[in-house]
Amino acid sequence: MAQPNGSDTALPPHPLRPLSQEEAQRASAIAIQAYAKDVSTTLTFRIVQLHEPEKAELVEFLKAEHAGAQPSSVPARQAEVLFDVVKDGQVQLIELIVDLDAAKVANTRSFPPVGHTGLIPPEFGQFQDACLASEIFSEAMAEFDIPDKFKIIIDPWPYGGPDPDEEIPRYMQGLVYARDSSNDNPDSNHYAYPLPIIPVMDMTTKKIIRVDRMATGGKGESLHAAAKADKPKKLFEQSTGAEYVPELLDIPLRQDAKPINVVQPEGASFKVHSDNLVEWQKWRFRVGFTPREGAVLHDVCYDGRPIVYRLSFSEMTVPYGDPRPPYHRKQAFDFGDGGCGRAANNLELGCDCLGAIHYFDAWMPGLDGEATLSKNVVCLHEQDNGVGWKHTNFRTGRAVVTRLRELVVQYIVTLANYEYIFAYKLDTAGGITVETRATGIVSVVPIDYGKTSDYGNVVSPGTLAQNHQHIFAIRVDPSIDSYSAEETSVVVEETHPIPMNPETNPHGNGYEIRRTVVDRPRHLDAEPKLNRVVRIENSTKTNPISGKNVAYKFTPSATQLLLADPGSVQAARAQFATHHVWVTGYRDGELWAAGELTNQSRRETGGVRDMTERGDWFAGASETSGGSGNGQQSSPVIWTVFGLTHNPRVEDWPVMPVEIHQIHIRPADFFTRNPALDVPANANKTSVLVPCCNRKDSGEEAAATNGDASEGGAVQKDPVTHLQGTKAVDPAELPLRTDKDKKRLSTTLSGLFGFGKKA
Amino acid sequence: MAQPNGSDTALPPHPLRPLSQEEAQRASAIAIQAYAKDVSTTLTFRIVQLHEPEKAELVEFLKAEHAGAQPSSVPARQAEVLFDVVKDGQVQLIELIVDLDAAKVANTRSFPPVGHTGLIPPEFGQFQDACLASEIFSEAMAEFDIPDKFKIIIDPWPYGGPDPDEEIPRYMQGLVYARDSSNDNPDSNHYAYPLPIIPVMDMTTKKIIRVDRMATGGKGESLHAAAKADKPKKLFEQSTGAEYVPELLDIPLRQDAKPINVVQPEGASFKVHSDNLVEWQKWRFRVGFTPREGAVLHDVCYDGRPIVYRLSFSEMTVPYGDPRPPYHRKQAFDFGDGGCGRAANNLELGCDCLGAIHYFDAWMPGLDGEATLSKNVVCLHEQDNGVGWKHTNFRTGRAVVTRLRELVVQYIVTLANYEYIFAYKLDTAGGITVETRATGIVSVVPIDYGKTSDYGNVVSPGTLAQNHQHIFAIRVDPSIDSYSAEETSVVVEETHPIPMNPETNPHGNGYEIRRTVVDRPRHLDAEPKLNRVVRIENSTKTNPISGKNVAYKFTPSATQLLLADPGSVQAARAQFATHHVWVTGYRDGELWAAGELTNQSRRETGGVRDMTERGDWFAGASETSGGSGNGQQSSPVIWTVFGLTHNPRVEDWPVMPVEIHQIHIRPADFFTRNPALDVPANANKTSVLVPCCNRKDSGEEAAATNGDASEGGAVQKDPVTHLQGTKAVDPAELPLRTDKDKKRLSTTLSGLFGFGKKA
Repeated sequence: MAQPNGSDTALPPHPLRPLSQEEAQRASAIAIQAYAKDVSTTLTFRIVQLHEPEKAELVEFLKAEHAGAQPSSVPARQAEVLFDVVKDGQVQLIELIVDLDAAKVANTRSFPPVGHTGLIPPEFGQFQDACLASEIFSEAMAEFDIPDKFKIIIDPWPYGGPDPDEEIPRYMQGLVYARDSSNDNPDSNHYAYPLPIIPVMDMTTKKIIRVDRMATGGKGESLHAAAKADKPKKLFEQSTGAEYVPELLDIPLRQDAKPINVVQPEGASFKVHSDNLVEWQKWRFRVGFTPREGAVLHDVCYDGRPIVYRLSFSEMTVPYGDPRPPYHRKQAFDFGDGGCGRAANNLELGCDCLGAIHYFDAWMPGLDGEATLSKNVVCLHEQDNGVGWKHTNFRTGRAVVTRLRELVVQYIVTLANYEYIFAYKLDTAGGITVETRATGIVSVVPIDYGKTSDYGNVVSPGTLAQNHQHIFAIRVDPSIDSYSAEETSVVVEETHPIPMNPETNPHGNGYEIRRTVVDRPRHLDAEPKLNRVVRIENSTKTNPISGKNVAYKFTPSATQLLLADPGSVQAARAQFATHHVWVTGYRDGELWAAGELTNQSRRETGGVRDMTERGDWFAGASETSGGSGNGQQSSPVIWTVFGLTHNPRVEDWPVMPVEIHQIHIRPADFFTRNPALDVPANANKTSVLVPCCNRKDSGEEAAATNGDASEGGAVQKDPVTHLQGTKAVDPAELPLRTDKDKKRLSTTLSGLFGFGKKA
Repeated sequence: MAQPNGSDTALPPHPLRPLSQEEAQRASAIAIQAYAKDVSTTLTFRIVQLHEPEKAELVEFLKAEHAGAQPSSVPARQAEVLFDVVKDGQVQLIELIVDLDAAKVANTRSFPPVGHTGLIPPEFGQFQDACLASEIFSEAMAEFDIPDKFKIIIDPWPYGGPDPDEEIPRYMQGLVYARDSSNDNPDSNHYAYPLPIIPVMDMTTKKIIRVDRMATGGKGESLHAAAKADKPKKLFEQSTGAEYVPELLDIPLRQDAKPINVVQPEGASFKVHSDNLVEWQKWRFRVGFTPREGAVLHDVCYDGRPIVYRLSFSEMTVPYGDPRPPYHRKQAFDFGDGGCGRAANNLELGCDCLGAIHYFDAWMPGLDGEATLSKNVVCLHEQDNGVGWKHTNFRTGRAVVTRLRELVVQYIVTLANYEYIFAYKLDTAGGITVETRATGIVSVVPIDYGKTSDYGNVVSPGTLAQNHQHIFAIRVDPSIDSYSAEETSVVVEETHPIPMNPETNPHGNGYEIRRTVVDRPRHLDAEPKLNRVVRIENSTKTNPISGKNVAYKFTPSATQLLLADPGSVQAARAQFATHHVWVTGYRDGELWAAGELTNQSRRETGGVRDMTERGDWFAGASETSGGSGNGQQSSPVIWTVFGLTHNPRVEDWPVMPVEIHQIHIRPADFFTRNPALDVPANANKTSVLVPCCNRKDSGEEAAATNGDASEGGAVQKDPVTHLQGTKAVDPAELPLRTDKDKKRLSTTLSGLFGFGKKA
């Protein structure tokens, strides 16, 4: 059977290759065989994905793979299948681990009644059907007088965190908007027209059980204030549209943004092999993809040396800061409640990235377990990121400049109104950048016309963009120069002032570096005042030049952490968001900063807080130190948390410009010199000069083009000789004569050390 | 006379245009006429540059210029000429303000004996000559036995800060290295071979007055430790080279980094007019250039609205953290001691930037006042920075994606061993990014073989890269939507949690924004825990949508501040580096965070600390509040300070990969919606697909090229239809019937809300 990404089914798949279509079908067929035993039982499939091998076993395979040796064993090919068993109106959630080769169930898991799995698209349809069928929803809608041209749109939302006294089954809520249909365009932006109601559905009974009313008041008004109005209340009288699709804009598109083409005439420098193996500029890794995380990097190596065993975006919580009930339930966990792989956009060539692009596809389960292909969910391309390193010898005028080249693995997700762009960037200097971009449409609610609010910003008449936070967690499972768990250690390094004193700091300029080995799981916060850095070291391998442990390091981002009160449900269920770094002990399958079941959770369960508290210890630390905990030795996993407190600007409307955040994971004495030293310093031949106003008599500007040599005109023909400069001799050097007479060597003064050589 | 950058000398120059060659010559001629009255007097020129008009006067001119009106007056065209008058061995520093039209001296300034002006290249030659002529330097050199193949190189350094008890005239010091001449290449890297001596010169007598010895010991040894050795001590026996020029590398260059061409077939989108006026994507500004600052942006406007009156890099200090004397004098002020404009590289096409580039040149004074042309000291080009904004309507599958386009004004400076890349980036979303990249060669000193140090990292045998900091100051002189000083106010905005309480935060999720108007000069620090943001507002103009003051804002970077002891000379002379933000009252000519005369300063004089303490007040604040100070009303100038504590990695050797830092100055309710909304969402036509392993039978990889359609092969011919996706209908919408019956509209469940449309 043909596979996406050129997988060759004639060979056994690599243990990290995502499931093929055939494997995914086989896995769901086994689930159906096991659980859909009679016609009154139906299965609703949520996840069908590769069950990644246990690390201990996979590591042995990877060592053999890299050594070019026959592995002693190949991990069993397994799938995870998560589904609801629905019978007689009762729903039971089941996860199977299916052995694909043996075609049988290897393990079965049922779930406690705490928290719920994420929402899947068919549930949105159920929610809408329930609204349609609901009397109380109809009654709520009847309170409004809405011009005929509007159609109602309901955005699905997870049911935040239940209130402490709520004993509830699986719920779902929705934000209600209206779309101006008079322009006859289904992409007219409905977010400009929010309605002040939130329907809530019981997912077990499929009934709307409540319609919450929103406050619409302004500054100084009570938490429940809404404008007094005769019923039915007229809506949208003073509202204005907020279109973003080009054909509906009320302003012309810019005509003067001329194309920038990113062109690789000799092709891309990367190679994509079967089973999602990528090689580029000494980097080698495999691209995984899961419905919850999206793209994952496995077994990231540089020049044959392992660096990261698994790198992933783990979780993000988006709590809203508007204290008016029921907005406290606007708290999404976009990975656990939604699923960023499932929400991944089908990327388009020349739009989501430029240049020479490879796309990865993924098989996603339908409601019935049928594997369907999601095309182009991940893109891979190279990009230039400016000067990589440069030095000019000011004596000779000789400059050596290289460019910083990056390989980007990117995916973009849509969660109702909002977009996130996630990227892993590997670069020619051995660095890994993990980037998030926030864009899309800010979540808005109604506000009475003419009022302003402490809880958000009015971005359009009657439309309040509420203050909120986005707090992300990235999971780094390292393999610094070794696959052995015992060799990885985490060290917190700080730079401290030394008080001026005659013995060690007589003039006061000295400062010191302090190291603290992390010997057991803990959390820590960014501390820029101390230049706090997290080093992930190989505790047994040292750099032959410096004598220090080979390492990668990163600076935790000093961004605002969770603002919700420590006693709130919001904080209880997002403990990961209360510290910038967590170091936990590795366990197979523990991938989730806020725990596996975030949807409707009351507290973070099985997340980084729990992992930290169970008391593992790390190699290099004494087992007897501390004394509490389970005493289990483990290898450290690092979770880095950062956030964006997003108090919206008017400029964020109707679609916000990207807010970019980056974490840089960089080698620190991992190499014996700058790994980019061998990057060629070739001048790019296609760059051209743009002159100034050389047709100023006619008032026109000259433009240099580099699209076609025949069009370049004067610019292309410019010999550019004046750019070469004149290489000066090296008068700054004093030859050391063998007769040790080191004096009286003539030099000339003028123009000697011309910083910036002159023409 | 022909001018660089197409200046039209037939028209009066714009008041902000840098001096033409003719003007610069005229200015120095007037100085010569005034001061070189006899043959025994010589002048040494340090700076000849435009004397920028007083703000009050220039603002009236700019208002008229933007209104297309005749200005009521044109500011007098003036030059600043800074030079030494040397007579009978005595040196007097003089600054003249020259009225160019009247051809006369408008003002004369002499200097107090505190601090000194920056070093200029001819002084480096003097320093070297002095070493050559010095007996004590010879004697110091005679202590070493150096293989014949080495030649001596001396790097000029400012004389840090004098010790508290030193009463000294103008000094200079140098770091001494040796170059391996056996490879017959003047660009062989001498920094791999440091010598343990620092010669010090009296610039008045031109004599080497002392040769300091450096400690070369390791951990646990005294601050003065050096290896015991028979005299002469053999040097470089175990040292290795550290070459970076390609022809000397001991490893082959990468062959597999295929070109990335940035091509603008229709030309660049920007226009460069005469007098350095630039227009691009609604932005309009003038590029200035000074010997001290390098490129400066003047009168930055967007869509006709002023934003920044003047934007510049003001200062940077680089204190070293090695407490061993005399390393406490390794503290450079790269703007005040060196001069970043003077140190600007002559940029090369296709190396320092890619694509369609405009270069600006600058006239620099020679020692004798002769204006000489520095070519290509600033480059201007556009670049793509990924997705700018995106939204996908998950109901229809329709995605609108635009790119983030940036216009980059970049210059690169070389200060002996080190490089900085400075850039201003304006973007299509109304944002301004100020970027620094640190690269070049880290400053190294000798260490005994086999030892390691607490004060730095061994990057090569016998070579210690010392720990140090780079602390930068950027000066922002704002003009937020107005040139009127009274309309600018600065507000510190923080986001605070609200303790959970029944009245205002019943569920604990609420948080609040607090504003503090800065009513008089002060400093403040970054505080990410509170999401501290600095807003620069127009206090009289409000956004018609939100009702808030129109503003630009930035988040001060939470980076480590100066580590030197508060009682140290290093701290006294770099007070600016002790806080992240300074807000001061505007005065003409006050451009320097650490004061005008940093070279050899004992304390920061006339810098941000002094500006803060003099007690101005800002419009909007009551003059009577506080009561102290001079009571002078003023407009606020904002200085943002950030740094890099650079404890070197082995990877930073021999030339370090760029360390990038960015400050983002972004609109905040300045516009009435996303200013990039009108950026076209066109797909780039030249992007191509790269397939996976489709020649896997032969073991070769297929490569997609986008250089020439005829070469693209299978990839170029790919109709890419599968990328288009199928637009789903819009079943999520419930038409609101005119009869108000809003129920029972049929929908279909399957595939309804497909997050990520499936193929």
